[in-house]
Amino acid sequence: MSEVLTYIDANLGRIRDELYDFLRIPSISAKAEHDADTRRSAEWLADRLRAAGLDVQIEETPGHPVVLGEWRGAGEDAPTVLIYGHYDVQPPEPLDEWASPPFEPTERDGRIYARGSADDKGQLFMHVKALEAHLASSGSLPVNVVVLAEGEEEVGSPNLVPFVDANLDRLACDVVLISDTGMFAEGLPSLGFSLRGLAYFEIRVSGARSDLHSGEYGGAVANPGNVLARILASLHDDEGRIAIAGFYDDVLDWDAETRAQIASLPHSDDEYREELGVDALVGEEGFSTLERLWIRPTCDVNGLLCGYTGEGAKTVLPNHAMAKVSFRLVPNQTDKAIKDLLEAHVSALAPAGVSIEISELHGGRPWRASVEGAHFEAAMDALEEAFGKRPVPMGGGGSIPIVVEFEERLGAPVLLVGFSLPGCNLHAPNEWLPIDNFEKGIGALALLYEKLGARPE
Amino acid sequence: MSEVLTYIDANLGRIRDELYDFLRIPSISAKAEHDADTRRSAEWLADRLRAAGLDVQIEETPGHPVVLGEWRGAGEDAPTVLIYGHYDVQPPEPLDEWASPPFEPTERDGRIYARGSADDKGQLFMHVKALEAHLASSGSLPVNVVVLAEGEEEVGSPNLVPFVDANLDRLACDVVLISDTGMFAEGLPSLGFSLRGLAYFEIRVSGARSDLHSGEYGGAVANPGNVLARILASLHDDEGRIAIAGFYDDVLDWDAETRAQIASLPHSDDEYREELGVDALVGEEGFSTLERLWIRPTCDVNGLLCGYTGEGAKTVLPNHAMAKVSFRLVPNQTDKAIKDLLEAHVSALAPAGVSIEISELHGGRPWRASVEGAHFEAAMDALEEAFGKRPVPMGGGGSIPIVVEFEERLGAPVLLVGFSLPGCNLHAPNEWLPIDNFEKGIGALALLYEKLGARPE
Repeated sequence: MSEVLTYIDANLGRIRDELYDFLRIPSISAKAEHDADTRRSAEWLADRLRAAGLDVQIEETPGHPVVLGEWRGAGEDAPTVLIYGHYDVQPPEPLDEWASPPFEPTERDGRIYARGSADDKGQLFMHVKALEAHLASSGSLPVNVVVLAEGEEEVGSPNLVPFVDANLDRLACDVVLISDTGMFAEGLPSLGFSLRGLAYFEIRVSGARSDLHSGEYGGAVANPGNVLARILASLHDDEGRIAIAGFYDDVLDWDAETRAQIASLPHSDDEYREELGVDALVGEEGFSTLERLWIRPTCDVNGLLCGYTGEGAKTVLPNHAMAKVSFRLVPNQTDKAIKDLLEAHVSALAPAGVSIEISELHGGRPWRASVEGAHFEAAMDALEEAFGKRPVPMGGGGSIPIVVEFEERLGAPVLLVGFSLPGCNLHAPNEWLPIDNFEKGIGALALLYEKLGARPE
Repeated sequence: MSEVLTYIDANLGRIRDELYDFLRIPSISAKAEHDADTRRSAEWLADRLRAAGLDVQIEETPGHPVVLGEWRGAGEDAPTVLIYGHYDVQPPEPLDEWASPPFEPTERDGRIYARGSADDKGQLFMHVKALEAHLASSGSLPVNVVVLAEGEEEVGSPNLVPFVDANLDRLACDVVLISDTGMFAEGLPSLGFSLRGLAYFEIRVSGARSDLHSGEYGGAVANPGNVLARILASLHDDEGRIAIAGFYDDVLDWDAETRAQIASLPHSDDEYREELGVDALVGEEGFSTLERLWIRPTCDVNGLLCGYTGEGAKTVLPNHAMAKVSFRLVPNQTDKAIKDLLEAHVSALAPAGVSIEISELHGGRPWRASVEGAHFEAAMDALEEAFGKRPVPMGGGGSIPIVVEFEERLGAPVLLVGFSLPGCNLHAPNEWLPIDNFEKGIGALALLYEKLGARPE
């Protein structure tokens, strides 16, 4: 065992204690009453990075600050690695569904339960400790390192891209490492190869001047609720495909190799179905469940509101109806193009007696990584050494818009090296991180720095 | 002018003052904090009926009491008239949309603005004063009279049918008079010939065990919001007809005479459209607006709720979606049959991966009156004398479930003799009753009692 791994092994108890201090800070970026906590979280992180041996600044933004740690002692010839993560967390509500308090880390069944354990404090802290292990055991790192930790990821990172653009020189790097995702299954390390994009809309249908009595007026005037249902139903055909003309024009026809690789993963539809508590899985015909989740686009209703929604019967003919509808996008779709297609689709339906307004609430581009090359291989090898199993490339159904931004603005590839597990309750009560992944993962990251820093033979 | 009409004319000022006292009592039956007010409203009404010369009891029910006034001095050979009305009112909210306080009657533009002015205290009180006019001017009435006023009409009359069933002898009558509807237009008195029935359902679609992340799970699992939209959209075809198999089987094919009579009414689609503030009227093809409102059934979404409905974007894949959907029914449809047809329709759609629950929240049968015979003619003549214009038979789009119950349980026909006007804001802010209709209507009712009491020549 190398000195670095020996160091990690010898310090696991203290490392876990430190993590728990980090997790105890309720750095809920969405809530102004936790602004002081969020700043405390940034300062705590800065202190730990400094203690590890990095130069650290807390960089102000219009919102929560960026913590920027640098270590450039590997020399000009060595590659530079940018490590990105976030020190803020989701709100913990509903509180009564937590088995233990969200900000009091609790170990049960080999897991660390706490808000932020998986997303993302726990994983960000693994990098801090992997960096410390190198610097403490040998006085140096095999690569130059920039740690960029933001405090606004859970509120849409409004100030991150401007910060990147204003600091392109300091952030210049050869590769970006992000540990904010998961492994495909327990004991099966994984490297992300794709993320879906997002096009999120609000559709508002308006009818008469005011709400009407459904008896006095029903039958003679358009009902925005009925019209909205008709619009939403028109978005899919009977085979689960999205029925908007042109919607699939830009969809990447993925290579046979990727599809074969996805098919080779240990996935059981029956188990997945049972976990979800449904009698059938439903999606686009002609694709497997994992393909539907990773490499095919979707259209989901996220919210509906119209008329009377309380107890019992109220005979109102509502004059407004609202839907939130989002599309998950795959390469090479863009939210801009999808908005145009959706508007054309709804215009063509041309329902009479109502007006329709479509506004885009959120958008983000899909991402696809190269699964070849030295960086990817370095990560595969490091994870294999640490976990004793060859990693699998894994798609992502969700969206991390900053990934594409980093690639474009910094001109560096992104490696998604994550350690949470399916069902770890991201953004939900009882979030957890496996202790085993936490401990092995620190070693994996330490090894990864080594492999990224290795000179070509 | 008869003594009765002279009496009314001479007392109009005092009558209006008394009405305003009645309207000042916030007898909101739906709100427990107004229980004392609702009882005060019953007592006030009982006092006025007693002062007019009737024997009055306040009859307790499990809810708000029934006020029962009787005058049986016309003799066994004279017909008995049952006058039904209600002394409770709708809640006034939203309060900030009232131009004057809802429980402080205010005259503007020839109208009395107050909650309950039209629905139904104002119209019920017109009967009280018409009765008083006869008894004060001649010491008797041309008919035996039973006044039945309930205090729970606005909460669905849960105790009225049991009360009727328990008091069939006291309520035995030859004809039922109800003044709780309106006139077709200003200056055009009207007699109701139809009411639509109601079948009101809640449809709940349930998917996975819990809400899911739309990125992590979108594409592989049924979305209850999408499924609900598909169900609702399937309820209509492209011609605005209801697309449930068998839905029209029991629908009365109305006679050409009724349709011609409807066509002869002074209605303008353009004016109606402009009042509603819509660019087009929408409904079942092949029928005029008034036919769509009165003699054709409908299906309207009354409410929708699903997922995230707040500001901005939340990427939730909801595990529940709810719709409130109601059908207005026409003779000879029944809510029971419609429930069976709806359930069969939804079962046939058989969406996978979700469970669907349909519950009926409210039901009521449609009603159709004879527009011939002595009672109807008596009402036509009385209204013509009072308003100087031959009344028109008028359909009703709404539902008054008690009408059918009275006809069946008491074996007596119902006359709907109403005096509000279109746009009078029933159940809405700024409810009003025209002063002219209020004053002429008292005379019309006094005349109607005379005509109903006239011995066949």
